[in-house]
Amino acid sequence: MDFASDNVYGVDAAIMEAMARANTGTAASYAGDEITARVEKQFNEVFEREVKVFLLTTGTAANCLALSTMVPPYGAIFCHGFAHISADECGAPEFFTGGAKLMGLDGVAGKITPKMVKDSLAGFIRAEHDPKPAAISITQSSELGTVYSLDEVQAFGELARAKNLRLHMDGARFANALVSLDCSPAEMTWQAGVDALSFGATKNGAMMVEAVVFFDDKLAVDFEHRRMRAGQLLSKNRFLAAQMEAYLSNDLWLNNARHANEMAARLAGGLSAASDIRLGVDCQANEVFAIMPRATHDVLAKSDAVFHPWLASGSDTDTVGNDEIMIRLVTSFQTTRDDVDAFVNLVG
Amino acid sequence: MDFASDNVYGVDAAIMEAMARANTGTAASYAGDEITARVEKQFNEVFEREVKVFLLTTGTAANCLALSTMVPPYGAIFCHGFAHISADECGAPEFFTGGAKLMGLDGVAGKITPKMVKDSLAGFIRAEHDPKPAAISITQSSELGTVYSLDEVQAFGELARAKNLRLHMDGARFANALVSLDCSPAEMTWQAGVDALSFGATKNGAMMVEAVVFFDDKLAVDFEHRRMRAGQLLSKNRFLAAQMEAYLSNDLWLNNARHANEMAARLAGGLSAASDIRLGVDCQANEVFAIMPRATHDVLAKSDAVFHPWLASGSDTDTVGNDEIMIRLVTSFQTTRDDVDAFVNLVG
Amino acid sequence: MDFASDNVYGVDAAIMEAMARANTGTAASYAGDEITARVEKQFNEVFEREVKVFLLTTGTAANCLALSTMVPPYGAIFCHGFAHISADECGAPEFFTGGAKLMGLDGVAGKITPKMVKDSLAGFIRAEHDPKPAAISITQSSELGTVYSLDEVQAFGELARAKNLRLHMDGARFANALVSLDCSPAEMTWQAGVDALSFGATKNGAMMVEAVVFFDDKLAVDFEHRRMRAGQLLSKNRFLAAQMEAYLSNDLWLNNARHANEMAARLAGGLSAASDIRLGVDCQANEVFAIMPRATHDVLAKSDAVFHPWLASGSDTDTVGNDEIMIRLVTSFQTTRDDVDAFVNLVG
Amino acid sequence: MDFASDNVYGVDAAIMEAMARANTGTAASYAGDEITARVEKQFNEVFEREVKVFLLTTGTAANCLALSTMVPPYGAIFCHGFAHISADECGAPEFFTGGAKLMGLDGVAGKITPKMVKDSLAGFIRAEHDPKPAAISITQSSELGTVYSLDEVQAFGELARAKNLRLHMDGARFANALVSLDCSPAEMTWQAGVDALSFGATKNGAMMVEAVVFFDDKLAVDFEHRRMRAGQLLSKNRFLAAQMEAYLSNDLWLNNARHANEMAARLAGGLSAASDIRLGVDCQANEVFAIMPRATHDVLAKSDAVFHPWLASGSDTDTVGNDEIMIRLVTSFQTTRDDVDAFVNLVG
Repeated sequence: MDFASDNVYGVDAAIMEAMARANTGTAASYAGDEITARVEKQFNEVFEREVKVFLLTTGTAANCLALSTMVPPYGAIFCHGFAHISADECGAPEFFTGGAKLMGLDGVAGKITPKMVKDSLAGFIRAEHDPKPAAISITQSSELGTVYSLDEVQAFGELARAKNLRLHMDGARFANALVSLDCSPAEMTWQAGVDALSFGATKNGAMMVEAVVFFDDKLAVDFEHRRMRAGQLLSKNRFLAAQMEAYLSNDLWLNNARHANEMAARLAGGLSAASDIRLGVDCQANEVFAIMPRATHDVLAKSDAVFHPWLASGSDTDTVGNDEIMIRLVTSFQTTRDDVDAFVNLVG
Repeated sequence: MDFASDNVYGVDAAIMEAMARANTGTAASYAGDEITARVEKQFNEVFEREVKVFLLTTGTAANCLALSTMVPPYGAIFCHGFAHISADECGAPEFFTGGAKLMGLDGVAGKITPKMVKDSLAGFIRAEHDPKPAAISITQSSELGTVYSLDEVQAFGELARAKNLRLHMDGARFANALVSLDCSPAEMTWQAGVDALSFGATKNGAMMVEAVVFFDDKLAVDFEHRRMRAGQLLSKNRFLAAQMEAYLSNDLWLNNARHANEMAARLAGGLSAASDIRLGVDCQANEVFAIMPRATHDVLAKSDAVFHPWLASGSDTDTVGNDEIMIRLVTSFQTTRDDVDAFVNLVG
Repeated sequence: MDFASDNVYGVDAAIMEAMARANTGTAASYAGDEITARVEKQFNEVFEREVKVFLLTTGTAANCLALSTMVPPYGAIFCHGFAHISADECGAPEFFTGGAKLMGLDGVAGKITPKMVKDSLAGFIRAEHDPKPAAISITQSSELGTVYSLDEVQAFGELARAKNLRLHMDGARFANALVSLDCSPAEMTWQAGVDALSFGATKNGAMMVEAVVFFDDKLAVDFEHRRMRAGQLLSKNRFLAAQMEAYLSNDLWLNNARHANEMAARLAGGLSAASDIRLGVDCQANEVFAIMPRATHDVLAKSDAVFHPWLASGSDTDTVGNDEIMIRLVTSFQTTRDDVDAFVNLVG
Repeated sequence: MDFASDNVYGVDAAIMEAMARANTGTAASYAGDEITARVEKQFNEVFEREVKVFLLTTGTAANCLALSTMVPPYGAIFCHGFAHISADECGAPEFFTGGAKLMGLDGVAGKITPKMVKDSLAGFIRAEHDPKPAAISITQSSELGTVYSLDEVQAFGELARAKNLRLHMDGARFANALVSLDCSPAEMTWQAGVDALSFGATKNGAMMVEAVVFFDDKLAVDFEHRRMRAGQLLSKNRFLAAQMEAYLSNDLWLNNARHANEMAARLAGGLSAASDIRLGVDCQANEVFAIMPRATHDVLAKSDAVFHPWLASGSDTDTVGNDEIMIRLVTSFQTTRDDVDAFVNLVG
């Protein structure tokens, strides 16, 4: 029973097979291969329009290279204070953008609102003494496993256009959000005003492949140079492409995400049924945040289940009492119903 | 017949199998897994001492993250003007070091000499108006497929110590150089004064894995932070480690390199035997640079063989006449004797 | 009546004269002149020990070049969220440090506490996913005109040593704090654990000269290179040095600061006497923050007095009611008693 | 007799007086003052069109902030290998641009040619493995005191437009070149295709003021932010503006430059008349490079004259024999005819 993260799981068999299949003969290096070309077309189909797409190995690289096209070195990026870019990437956004400033906002349930961005913008009254407002970044699904509705994304798109900002979506768990909303990739992104997307695959069954997808060609100008000088262009790129091709084929990505979300819902339901456990935030994708008495936590901690305690921060979650602990449980494409039920039984 | 580069080839079967084997169960993410721990020990054995080793996905990342620990942002790095870091990485060294300056030297046959570094150092007479001399980087084997002898590496080590510089070795083709010299990894690196090594595996049979190896612990301090903020820490790191573990097991790396070198020697010998072809530089590892009349080149270009013309630059190679063309031919662990012979026959 | 800032005033006559005196004959450029050498000795005397000192033209350059020696690009700096480095320098710290992260803390009255730093440090539990804690920066006197006591500075010094952090002091208004505490420069800095100081002179009577003072020689290594490549080394440096020499001579700097502080105290006292005005924070140096009804503010705004409204932020100041406005009033070495009294009379 | 550099001299009396005059009353800080506004208009007049102009304290800051608007972090800048930006600024261009690469070309007499740039461009055949060609920078007058003719500048302007590059002019000694060519500022810059100019004043009589002048408004967008975050925006900016206003008034800048050039011509003529001395390059502005036997040099070195030997580099100057030394002599607005004649007499 491993609920530590969705990235502790391995690689989907279909993706493993695709990589093996790609291992024949020679192929042009540095993304000049045919599989890469096919993947580019797949993305056009997925998003129902022409997009510019680039494959990378990590979500941090995807986020930060995407942002580097959207903000100048003296720019400001509005995001949740506990967004991955703000709290988990060791200053990578600052590195890749040449020094841009993250304005970390304190939003409920891992989500920020246009009003928060507007309030923060209202403080930019000192001309060049302030950085220049340049982009908004939202995470879909969020670090707390919550999902922005289409209306909410759309509202950010409108704000971005009104304020001449760019809108970035960190989609490390894009598929989980998509099946949660049951909408199309187009609806959740460019149709709602998203300019660039970090499209995750690793957490949902791939080995190591993420994509940056641009919906505005201007942002994609010279991206090849940015990727290269960041040490992110693989010589044997066909093995990134093979992962992504399989991921996007036969609805693998959607099925995997659906399964993970179902397991999370089952887990959330099971835990909530316990009299002494409540959810810190709603479960909308593949993460469960459960608040429980320390005594209950200790029972779980003594089991062979793997999970992490989670520090409540700001106004993000329901209040965690002094004698309580909040834990995070993440489900994946490989999480089994048996594991979920076994875990729930520990507190039943 | 593909001689375009060693990176157009795929992945060694043993490495592919190791990756598949690694795909069972869950594993701690972000390099906390057991395979990574085992690989760290392997490197200690390979180098006959404790080293600090970090796995990355590209040679550019390995080179530039290594250099970022060796030079300040206002530092100078002495290297060949056509070293990969100087000519092929789109300014990645400048990006990763925060702006250090590469002093590109014009050396014969892809190699620089201590004298060239000393001559360049002699121009650093303007105190803080010059960048601060900080590191030397040599490529083993070089971009022209030549190899520094142990004495030559040692001479750089002595110069580095005398001038308070750090010595970096770009070993994208480390194994090819090693079997060429028939020495130990220790002899070719730390025993000769190398402080940090970019240890390549991708070109020699891996899918996408390189390592930075530090022989001075001080340089390794905080390297985890550097790797993370460069977007180079993989969540499912076990799949990098699995590649490297297989690569270093059962002499796979040495056997692969030996084969590639043998194919290059065979190719060099065969081509040299043609009356109108001569080598631009000696063939000492797995690259052949052949100068030939345009007419001969055209015959080759019309075949199904893949290769690239190579611009002579500086004083690097033998002079290429106006009616001549120099081509580069790279052999790999998968290059076959048949392919070599078929190519030679084209000009026979 | 100009209370907009201490930097709207001109240059002290004694400093102007010193600059004119320096304008004779030729002098070695780039800080090789004799006046610069004399200033270096002056600083040793001021701080009662050997220090390393470098002259610069702006406080932003002083702060950020100092910090660049104290933190790695992947480091974290703890400071007040409204410290100048965090809120007024357009990302200069990120630029000069190569991307370090400012952890803006919400402290009362412009000051942070060791406890706040410790609480923030407690969140650094994710190893390399977090930036590396590297430095604390405190502002003396603070952006709200308050002053850290010697005990308070000492407590930061102890925390810094205990946690292996560096301690930086932004002393843009160093002299104002010094005369407020009536202590020695040594006591307020290195004796209390400060590693590097931005020593301001411009706001207190100079034209454009600030200094970085290092109390740890290690931090000063290569600082000449840092200053040069930041475009901060003046060819005719003697004219910076002449300003500083005069500033530090005949107690000019202390007398000027004392005057400014006295004017602020007089202003604070006069305003507080008005029944509808109260101070947002205590007046301890040369800044007054006064909260008043909008109607009262409008009377002042219609006068020829120049001043700025100030947004209350976080828990920094006393609460500003909906019908109230807080204004900032800054006094300088040239502020006259008449101006203060005239301003007070406007609300009398 | 000080010929070490034009920056060893002090400040023109008219500029000193202007600074003293500016020291009355209060003025809006951070370039919001009236003198700054007047200077902006002066520049429009000088260049016979609307320009965007920003005042800075050093030539390095002017060059590098200008370049930061013209090239992306992954860009390449073509310049002379011994241009100030390449050889004398300790990596400042790399710092300010976020890592752009200088392609140092080896041109005769301190000047490069469009052909050299084209030849270098011809090597950019590796797509994103190369940096992106972005700008050309020429120095007027050059580090060897030579001057590009209007036709030569125009040829660079045409090349820049044809290749989609930006053209930067380092005019640290702009006035010296201008009076040498006897043309208008407009002719020497935007009419010939220059996009941005570093306009020097310090070497020619100011204390510490340089300007960046943009002839393309697009480049000036957000320049206030760039200047601020580089620590280059002075709070008491009126004292920079006062220098520049006086410099541009009453033809002071032209008269000063004319004098310096005349002194250099006199010096060059006098030295050339000696049988054992010849010029390393033509004297076209205010610098003289004289090659002489070591014995002659020793006579000069024993006098009280101050000057520097100059290393011949690349193909820049006439060949310096083994028994010879080349020295650099720089004249300024304050160099006297007596000093020149006395120096010449030393070798007479």
